[in-house]
Amino acid sequence: MKTPQASIITIGDELLIGQTIDTNSAFIAQELNRLGLWVRRRVAVGDDREEIISALREESKNSSLLILTGGLGPTADDITKPLLCDYFGGKLVRNQAVLEHIERLFEKVYKRPGALLERNQKQADVPDNCLVLHNPSGSAPGMLFDQKGIICISLPGVPREMKELMTTAVVPWIKENITRPFIVHRTLLTCGIGESMLAELLHEFERTLPAQISLAYLPNYGMVKLRLTGKSESRTGLKEQVDDLAQQLAVLTADYLVTDQDLSMEAIIGQLLLNKNWTVATAESCTGGLIAHQLSSIPGASAYFKGSVVCYDNEMKEDLLGVQKKTLQEHGAVSEQTVTEMVEGVRKRTNANVAVAVSGIMGPSGGTPDKPVGTVCVAVSNGDKTMATTLRLGFDRARNTQQTALFALNLLRKLIVSG
Amino acid sequence: MKTPQASIITIGDELLIGQTIDTNSAFIAQELNRLGLWVRRRVAVGDDREEIISALREESKNSSLLILTGGLGPTADDITKPLLCDYFGGKLVRNQAVLEHIERLFEKVYKRPGALLERNQKQADVPDNCLVLHNPSGSAPGMLFDQKGIICISLPGVPREMKELMTTAVVPWIKENITRPFIVHRTLLTCGIGESMLAELLHEFERTLPAQISLAYLPNYGMVKLRLTGKSESRTGLKEQVDDLAQQLAVLTADYLVTDQDLSMEAIIGQLLLNKNWTVATAESCTGGLIAHQLSSIPGASAYFKGSVVCYDNEMKEDLLGVQKKTLQEHGAVSEQTVTEMVEGVRKRTNANVAVAVSGIMGPSGGTPDKPVGTVCVAVSNGDKTMATTLRLGFDRARNTQQTALFALNLLRKLIVSG
Repeated sequence: MKTPQASIITIGDELLIGQTIDTNSAFIAQELNRLGLWVRRRVAVGDDREEIISALREESKNSSLLILTGGLGPTADDITKPLLCDYFGGKLVRNQAVLEHIERLFEKVYKRPGALLERNQKQADVPDNCLVLHNPSGSAPGMLFDQKGIICISLPGVPREMKELMTTAVVPWIKENITRPFIVHRTLLTCGIGESMLAELLHEFERTLPAQISLAYLPNYGMVKLRLTGKSESRTGLKEQVDDLAQQLAVLTADYLVTDQDLSMEAIIGQLLLNKNWTVATAESCTGGLIAHQLSSIPGASAYFKGSVVCYDNEMKEDLLGVQKKTLQEHGAVSEQTVTEMVEGVRKRTNANVAVAVSGIMGPSGGTPDKPVGTVCVAVSNGDKTMATTLRLGFDRARNTQQTALFALNLLRKLIVSG
Repeated sequence: MKTPQASIITIGDELLIGQTIDTNSAFIAQELNRLGLWVRRRVAVGDDREEIISALREESKNSSLLILTGGLGPTADDITKPLLCDYFGGKLVRNQAVLEHIERLFEKVYKRPGALLERNQKQADVPDNCLVLHNPSGSAPGMLFDQKGIICISLPGVPREMKELMTTAVVPWIKENITRPFIVHRTLLTCGIGESMLAELLHEFERTLPAQISLAYLPNYGMVKLRLTGKSESRTGLKEQVDDLAQQLAVLTADYLVTDQDLSMEAIIGQLLLNKNWTVATAESCTGGLIAHQLSSIPGASAYFKGSVVCYDNEMKEDLLGVQKKTLQEHGAVSEQTVTEMVEGVRKRTNANVAVAVSGIMGPSGGTPDKPVGTVCVAVSNGDKTMATTLRLGFDRARNTQQTALFALNLLRKLIVSG
């Protein structure tokens, strides 16, 4: 069976002037991929009739599924709906169910009861030749056209609404209506090794992979995800084969392996803490609360995350964490001595089982010959054992902050695993 | 003069399986736009020879400038360089300057002195018919082909390297070599009003805009940016015209206007604090440090950002911020009474001039009939005046967190402006 091919078309001038980062395409691609569909191309075009039609024509040549996002909003530049209606030869009719849904939305959610603006009423007009997809939390419905062997699905561009429609309407429809190969993914997360070293390490493994299995390197924020994908017409043995290869991969990358599940660093730390019934706290200077934010971004984090003291100011280091004035004067705020006192201070103040502390110079200014921009000290402690180390990063402020948070979380993870 | 048209082509299977969000295109589009070039289309294709060549052919038909990113790394799936070399009829030759640069990089930056891997040496092979663009912080050089009226520029896919090459090599080259119209942008940031209400408010303004001026609505994280763009063959009066319209726009949107400069909410707050010589601190429960992280992400924030107490745990609210046990018992952690004590506590503990505190239920669990998921209390204080309010959000955890941080920062901004 040939893998069905898909194209994603995103619409909106905001994508072409670069003020909006397109996160929709990645989400849609992930969902389609998981279903065993291959996304051949992604195209972004402006709010321009000719460009949209030309993209529809071109992508229809090689893809049997087109997913469009954007261009459905209430403002003047949103032209996708009448265009699709024309393109597929239908006419716009007011849909009573959609209209009532919009009225409810304005009354209950937007808290703007009363008569709808004409531009909002118009959102209830839909082509008479499409399947209308209910958009639970927005006013622009999705539309599915099924004509001449092409499936064309149009979704709103608001990420939350697009995601909800994909999950509740599009994915179930595809499962029911499109024949697809079986597909199995396994993802491993590594930290502390670059893409090219990893490729070198896995050269032989990759060379001897069976034809139906592929390996992808997905570098992301200082980590590299390894993704094994098995694709076959028959389900038999595919999952076992991919699992077996994932296990080999875990052994080969053991020194750098964060997890062999498809989870983030902070989710893995959450699982480890829950398993041990431990709690965690952070003391952050240069990361300004980013590590705390990441730890607390996981649902249920309140079971293990105590909190954080973000002590940008040296007085806060002394007053709230008990760092000694003498330590700050003799060694400076960015020193292994200071982060050691910070981590022990925050652990004691919060009664957490483990803690992490960071202090550094993120740039662009604040560096000295001795401690240039990118100098960062990190400490972790579990009460019995406190370890401190110094990093020398050399990126810009945002990247230094991200890298520091990642390094600190990885050190924390190792401490939890070891303890 | 016709505006020169450009296409952005991003290359890599990781874009098609959705594991990487394409931030490169937005950056490149912004830079080109600022230069007065119009990005017609963005296309993402996989590591597939035929797909890349087909994208090059198609985009060359209507765009005179093509910018490619990705596919230049050291791993096996990176095929762009030999392909471009063939496509433009050149041959690969080892470039001594690039080789020496790579050797230096491995020795000094990656701290891996000694013989280069063959795959890294190969990165110094470049087509003999292109202009080599120096990549200061990476091993893959950029390439510029200028043939048959088409400029094709290939850049590495690593965002940091791409950005550096755009800024130091591509933008200066375009300024020197491509004739462009004059272009002027002015951006205003609004908060607290949706896109369609804003469009309604600005209907008449937009209808009467002169032909050479356009207005774009750019919704982003609960705010809407308004961008005026003037484009003309003559510089005369263009800036004054756009400035004048921006001023009208500021008056029309006054109730929602955060800034009439192209700055973020946290940057504006930083400027306001610096102007008053004031300091700020935060006390965060449900946002877990995000507000602190945002405030501290601005270079030079240490001049006004004292720090934060992230008190996920109720004991921390009592112990570090002095919230009374009685308040927590009678009103709960998510109450205006509690955030009021939190904000006053953190202001006193840190000696900050102003402070903000938040406590809420972000979901997916933890809601009660009385206080459902999305209930958030926010307080701000400047010592003289403390204000608390309650939000009812109803999104997912990540979005509730983002919206809370934004609302809190906007309330803080208003307090600073008023004080």
